[in-house]
Amino acid sequence: MTFLILFGGSSFEHEISIVSAITLKDKIKKHNLKFVFIDKNRDFYLIDKENMKSKFFSTGEYKKSTKLEITKGGFKYKKGLLKKEEYLDFDVAINLIHGRDGEDGKIPGMLEFFKIKAITPNIESCAISYNKVLTKLFAKLRGVEVIDYEIINEPKTKFDFPVIVKPARLGSSIGVSIARNQDEFNYAFDVAKEFDDLIIVEPFIEGIEEYNLAGCFANEWIFSKVEKVEKKEFLDFEKKYMDFSRKETNLNSIDKNLEEKLKENFKKIYKDEFENALIRCDFFVKDDIIYLNEINPIPGSLANYLFDNFEEVLEKLANNLKEEKEIIIDYQYINKIQMAKGK
Amino acid sequence: MTFLILFGGSSFEHEISIVSAITLKDKIKKHNLKFVFIDKNRDFYLIDKENMKSKFFSTGEYKKSTKLEITKGGFKYKKGLLKKEEYLDFDVAINLIHGRDGEDGKIPGMLEFFKIKAITPNIESCAISYNKVLTKLFAKLRGVEVIDYEIINEPKTKFDFPVIVKPARLGSSIGVSIARNQDEFNYAFDVAKEFDDLIIVEPFIEGIEEYNLAGCFANEWIFSKVEKVEKKEFLDFEKKYMDFSRKETNLNSIDKNLEEKLKENFKKIYKDEFENALIRCDFFVKDDIIYLNEINPIPGSLANYLFDNFEEVLEKLANNLKEEKEIIIDYQYINKIQMAKGK
Repeated sequence: MTFLILFGGSSFEHEISIVSAITLKDKIKKHNLKFVFIDKNRDFYLIDKENMKSKFFSTGEYKKSTKLEITKGGFKYKKGLLKKEEYLDFDVAINLIHGRDGEDGKIPGMLEFFKIKAITPNIESCAISYNKVLTKLFAKLRGVEVIDYEIINEPKTKFDFPVIVKPARLGSSIGVSIARNQDEFNYAFDVAKEFDDLIIVEPFIEGIEEYNLAGCFANEWIFSKVEKVEKKEFLDFEKKYMDFSRKETNLNSIDKNLEEKLKENFKKIYKDEFENALIRCDFFVKDDIIYLNEINPIPGSLANYLFDNFEEVLEKLANNLKEEKEIIIDYQYINKIQMAKGK
Repeated sequence: MTFLILFGGSSFEHEISIVSAITLKDKIKKHNLKFVFIDKNRDFYLIDKENMKSKFFSTGEYKKSTKLEITKGGFKYKKGLLKKEEYLDFDVAINLIHGRDGEDGKIPGMLEFFKIKAITPNIESCAISYNKVLTKLFAKLRGVEVIDYEIINEPKTKFDFPVIVKPARLGSSIGVSIARNQDEFNYAFDVAKEFDDLIIVEPFIEGIEEYNLAGCFANEWIFSKVEKVEKKEFLDFEKKYMDFSRKETNLNSIDKNLEEKLKENFKKIYKDEFENALIRCDFFVKDDIIYLNEINPIPGSLANYLFDNFEEVLEKLANNLKEEKEIIIDYQYINKIQMAKGK
């Protein structure tokens, strides 16, 4: 199978996406890979596998690569002096664009519009996971607990300090801060406001445990191992980023009962909403209650490190992609109107 | 100003969109218009103004028109024997694609991705208004009442008959039916299921009044007149459609107090969510309580018949479009990693 990995994008997580794609290059060995980079100006480039190094992008060298255009069924480019149009050959695309463009629904919508088979969340599931308020409403609808929250227009809250202040629409902890007093709250509010007009605040709960679980439905439920996230207090964007290509994770066996409960909650979120995507749900656990913290519809390097058989998971998902419904357009209403008009 | 009207699409409301576009051709006189048709195969065509007649589309004659491609900044086509690439010249696009493609977020996402200025709902507001469950969650969040509902997986409900059965994700009453007994409920459920896997049921409330209000925010609030919807019982898709190009609507002055309340509710829904769109909210009123029934983020022919000064509204909105935030990508994280690695 040939996978086409779409990465980059006009996103605060543009660079994470590059690192994600480079990571997958090393992790996927059984299948063929093609790499399509979307640069900050939203131009598409076909990147040779041997050029999949971070410097190739940061230096702008990528601009010498073949330019592509997205079109029905895939991507095309102009070949040779005669500028003959050629189409890239691949089986399934993988949307690996974190944050804006990839996770806000733009690329998913374009892939569907152009009938490009892809491992990707769809538009609606992007909207739900991209906006933390919608995530909370959706989780409650599905019977999954979430941490209480408040939408704020100024640094005032019903919660006692410490609190966490978050822009509603960004991933990867960008613009998120903890505030332990009013001064910190004022500052945290301003920081969040730089990234989004919609700001939420949550109580910061000491001693809460975080567990990550990735998975998908591909004719059967497929789950990763559960990762217990060890962190001193809170990873800001930079720490999380520098930590991104980590090799070691805490995958010691966790309580079987807790693991089952996490999977049940994962299913409630994923079912009939996240088809065609490999997602990671980040849960909090406190006093035996499981809370959904966030849904990553395109987790960093597709959370490959959590799976024993990552390539097999990708293959199964690729072979079980649900297609958009066919809509028959036969102009029967226009024909009726014309008949009624006697035309 | 030159408006480019995008219509058609792979949607159950494809034909409505054609009628909508033809209607706007007659209503917009001060401004220049260009018409871009998306056919059922999602090919783009530039339609000459004189060909804007329903038969031109139903007969397939449109296929002789100039083919277009969507690209950065707009639409391009190949001119002459040398196939030189030319770009369409226009100021602002108007997304007039009802239902799938236009109102599910695909076209809005593409317009934003390709930096095409447009009067259109954005992806998130599409997701909210396209899925009736999300609409209800969102309205409640904004402090607007909605009719109680239940998500059902089989024809069973907590409500007494009569009930209304609706597929969650389609507009224009497609697949919606009233059920007065279990037999009708079974049938209504099957009908709805043909259109969506997510089905909701609501109590059918006798004697409820329906009011439509359109508007937008363009540096100031602009509201249409309020239309009291007169209907015998319930307009199914066909009746609604045949009724579509109606000239007369019930625009008798309604109670000022009610009008104010409807506007307040409209603002709660629209604010910070539907910018750049001209939407129509359909409200129910019963016992002095206002309920949001649905949000039409792209109402039929943009609800022009509700405005005294429709062209001015379009112009104001076009002149006050909010642009996507700039994201600076400077590769500072990749540079740091490379420095840390000593490369």
